[in-house]
Amino acid sequence: MSTSLTRVRAAYARIEAADRPEVWITLRPRQEVEAEARTIDERVAAGERLPLAGRLFAAKGNIDVHGIPTTAGCPAYAYDPPADAPAVARLRAAGAIVLGSTNLDQFATGLVGTRSPYGAVRGAHAPERISGGSSSGSAVAVALGIVDFALGTDTAGSGRVPAAFNGIVGLKPTRGLVPTEGVVPACASLDCVTVFARTLPEAEQALAFMASPPARDLPPLPQRAPGPWRIAVPPLDRLGELDEGWAEAYEAAAARFVAAGASIRTIDPTPFTEAAAMLYEGAFVAERYTAVGSFVDKLIAEGGEGLDPTVAGIITRARDIPAHRLFADQDRLASLRAHALAELADADALLLPTAPGHPTLAEVTADPLGTNARLGRFTNSTNLFDLAAVAVPAGQVNGLPFGVMLIGPAFTDDRLAAIARALEPEVSLAVVGAHLTGQPLNPQLLALGARLDRTTTTAPVYRLHALRTTPPKPGLVHVGEGGAAIEAEVWRLPADGLGRLLAALPRPMALGSVELADGARVPGFLCEPSALVDTEDITRYGSWREYLKRRSGQLPQGRGELRDQPRLTRTRPQTRHPTDE
Amino acid sequence: MSTSLTRVRAAYARIEAADRPEVWITLRPRQEVEAEARTIDERVAAGERLPLAGRLFAAKGNIDVHGIPTTAGCPAYAYDPPADAPAVARLRAAGAIVLGSTNLDQFATGLVGTRSPYGAVRGAHAPERISGGSSSGSAVAVALGIVDFALGTDTAGSGRVPAAFNGIVGLKPTRGLVPTEGVVPACASLDCVTVFARTLPEAEQALAFMASPPARDLPPLPQRAPGPWRIAVPPLDRLGELDEGWAEAYEAAAARFVAAGASIRTIDPTPFTEAAAMLYEGAFVAERYTAVGSFVDKLIAEGGEGLDPTVAGIITRARDIPAHRLFADQDRLASLRAHALAELADADALLLPTAPGHPTLAEVTADPLGTNARLGRFTNSTNLFDLAAVAVPAGQVNGLPFGVMLIGPAFTDDRLAAIARALEPEVSLAVVGAHLTGQPLNPQLLALGARLDRTTTTAPVYRLHALRTTPPKPGLVHVGEGGAAIEAEVWRLPADGLGRLLAALPRPMALGSVELADGARVPGFLCEPSALVDTEDITRYGSWREYLKRRSGQLPQGRGELRDQPRLTRTRPQTRHPTDE
Repeated sequence: MSTSLTRVRAAYARIEAADRPEVWITLRPRQEVEAEARTIDERVAAGERLPLAGRLFAAKGNIDVHGIPTTAGCPAYAYDPPADAPAVARLRAAGAIVLGSTNLDQFATGLVGTRSPYGAVRGAHAPERISGGSSSGSAVAVALGIVDFALGTDTAGSGRVPAAFNGIVGLKPTRGLVPTEGVVPACASLDCVTVFARTLPEAEQALAFMASPPARDLPPLPQRAPGPWRIAVPPLDRLGELDEGWAEAYEAAAARFVAAGASIRTIDPTPFTEAAAMLYEGAFVAERYTAVGSFVDKLIAEGGEGLDPTVAGIITRARDIPAHRLFADQDRLASLRAHALAELADADALLLPTAPGHPTLAEVTADPLGTNARLGRFTNSTNLFDLAAVAVPAGQVNGLPFGVMLIGPAFTDDRLAAIARALEPEVSLAVVGAHLTGQPLNPQLLALGARLDRTTTTAPVYRLHALRTTPPKPGLVHVGEGGAAIEAEVWRLPADGLGRLLAALPRPMALGSVELADGARVPGFLCEPSALVDTEDITRYGSWREYLKRRSGQLPQGRGELRDQPRLTRTRPQTRHPTDE
Repeated sequence: MSTSLTRVRAAYARIEAADRPEVWITLRPRQEVEAEARTIDERVAAGERLPLAGRLFAAKGNIDVHGIPTTAGCPAYAYDPPADAPAVARLRAAGAIVLGSTNLDQFATGLVGTRSPYGAVRGAHAPERISGGSSSGSAVAVALGIVDFALGTDTAGSGRVPAAFNGIVGLKPTRGLVPTEGVVPACASLDCVTVFARTLPEAEQALAFMASPPARDLPPLPQRAPGPWRIAVPPLDRLGELDEGWAEAYEAAAARFVAAGASIRTIDPTPFTEAAAMLYEGAFVAERYTAVGSFVDKLIAEGGEGLDPTVAGIITRARDIPAHRLFADQDRLASLRAHALAELADADALLLPTAPGHPTLAEVTADPLGTNARLGRFTNSTNLFDLAAVAVPAGQVNGLPFGVMLIGPAFTDDRLAAIARALEPEVSLAVVGAHLTGQPLNPQLLALGARLDRTTTTAPVYRLHALRTTPPKPGLVHVGEGGAAIEAEVWRLPADGLGRLLAALPRPMALGSVELADGARVPGFLCEPSALVDTEDITRYGSWREYLKRRSGQLPQGRGELRDQPRLTRTRPQTRHPTDE
């Protein structure tokens, strides 16, 4: 079984189809990666334990990958790393294959994804909007399905803002949980290596392999007081300006937690947003000069080839910040942190929008610094306060991804991911027969955690047949012309409940996309063609329940009587349709 | 939307259909519960926040439920509790409805489920075998789908052994996490209120509502050293005698953890099993006399009506245990605990079979004490050592449920549940077209976490049609007679991945049960009947890939050439089948 090789081939096909060359700084040659995949597949076949075999990932261009130059987004800075960064090495040792290094805001300085001589990275689902940064290419490579997960880094929010803009998960681990050796520093004391993936379990698994005991001593964790999750939520009017529809989407996310049983408490976000402003406006930005300042100075002296002007400006301006300002800022930060933790109290997590809005490429071009500063309003303080964060998708606004963030105490990374699962999207299921409320198989739905969403009808394009099953079930058949609207209930349930329902579904029942009266298409019950042979077409009843009622003799069955009963559908009795056979 | 009322009606229908009267000591009258359900539904409709609305539960007969006599399995002991136990009250306050009190081994003394004047509780899936105990009725009520979750108690393993025997989840929280007020004590210093449910998330949610800060001060938790989960596993030959096939099932469970990326380490289970033997053989059993001994003595003096003779014997024999033996046993236990924790070291969990075997009712009748003692080999030490445990299903042996247990440090309850998720059953998916390896939609499967399990064919009862879809897809149609075997790949994926695949499936594709060559039936791709109209029957190619190859002109298309190619199927070209229309 050539799992890894198959995965690699699918990735290169996807790269070609996606046509987003700006995602990559260095994409490894296909032949080389296929050869590595074959080796992995052979090792697995030989019985070796490689739990990440078959998984592809990408590394942000400021993380060392042996065999690929580390550029940090600046061609002149490029060097050939002597080894993989430990985070990369651990993933490869577990069988994962790295596809290449991805584009980023130069020197990881920015939240936009446009500050790169390798090209501005466009949003995966909205090419006219930014991808977010600085881990731009990694996020888009995941969102487009090219790789299974990708490494980013996060100082101000670079592992979270691009997750939100591209509809994926971003885990920002506690500082020190993943080694930052082999990573070009942005602010060395704040940088974290992060993971993007399309689902929480995928991201959590990758993180488990990357993490190791940090250099600092692990203080014992205060125990969580038991009880349902406690989520801290600032009042809407304290969040500042948000993009249109984002406040409603944020409130909907909070409501999802309430529905899942969490308790919500209101807190004042001021210490978080005040600290956020300090990251670029205060003295902390000087650490970026410490990291690459002398290189940037020298490059400018040589003509500045390949330097992003916005990034170069930020770094060189940081040169003259006096150390006494840093001491003062550190004092102020300590005080804000104490306030922030007091606000959080025993809350498990602070829920925030990941970003206040999703700018277009044009908006960033028009105001590179202002747009960027606004983007970090909710993310900038997390690493300054030494907190952990998980960024997850939370629906869509105007057809584009919307994301929220859970921020919690250091080393509660696992707990934050567990809490975030409450936001995993539920799915719908349309039922028309034995699973309707009160019918014999309805308890199956309840046992899977389903809740009734609404009662409606299908679009008038179906016919209904009484199948010869035990218990009796109807077969819903899409016919287009000549169909009728059939009474349906729409239930909401977790995706794994839907999967388990399908796994237990007996022939001849099937599940497919069902068109509803309002035009929505949701998964719903259908049946195999062969089940329809020699069955009664009961479309004229408009409803399985109505048919059962008539059959049971509770009501007269004459057709004359039918006219006196309420009808849910326009009926088309008697006409035989080809699929009735 | 009458969610609660619907659920209640389904429960009473299920109670009638299941015909297991021994499950209940007191089942509340249907009218009374329906009235309560209507009230809950009205409160939800009025906007009240009741996160457990629509959930039904049962309480073990030693837990106070206001309005129901607390019997502890002994009619003469019955009293009318003045209020719900806090655990029950918290669930009801969140909108859950209690259906009644369930049968148990009298005074929660036993692991068998047969020691009750209310009848021996039979296994949910094997009526000739015991249900396990002492929380027998609660476990069976959950396993039969009557209630969504149920409360048990666990001193020696009463919240776990019945979970294993009935194929459900049992959470045994850390001592003190759920208040034991309003619970008839077995060994008051060891008793825990537990939860049974069919899935981990359901059990975890109920537990979140029952838990509260324990009376004892919460010591800070040592931090977990990062990295993949570390699972401690004793060598098979140190587990003692197991039922036939159970060792293999246990090893398979360990292998599932390895596949999920966990690291496995071998440990010596001796301190665990030695402490286990002390629970009934040593002085600790005297605490049962403290709890109900004088009552039992008095009842015996009055004739012993309704006393279980085995339970009465255990309790009365405990009267004369001298206190100096208790001091000695406490010393020995402390030493064994220190050894046990040293063995665990930084492991996150100890993986054990929940029980060594599943006896029949007849075996228990033949040797009531010996059978019972054997059952507690793996569970008895958990509460003595002040550890947390999660019991989960881990497949089947000879058609009956097999269960394993994860045991970990106190207050790591959430982590143990997270680790146990690795054992949640994956589901299969049969693909015959665009999702095959190398075909355009295969990356969808990879992105959902699917892995190729095997390449096979369907049973020879299908026909294959080339649908008019983009990208091109085949339609698989069950015809029985006149069908052929079609090349298929079987993939394994998490249930939520299957649910998400279905949620995104466009018309006219459908998913249903597909019969494979080996007789297995797994979910797989089908299509709606209307999609088959005017399509080419391509059954003769035996394979979608073969059909594409021929069409692409890579190989000659003449029928004479076909004979020279390997065929996967017996073909039946040209004959038109009714569903071809």
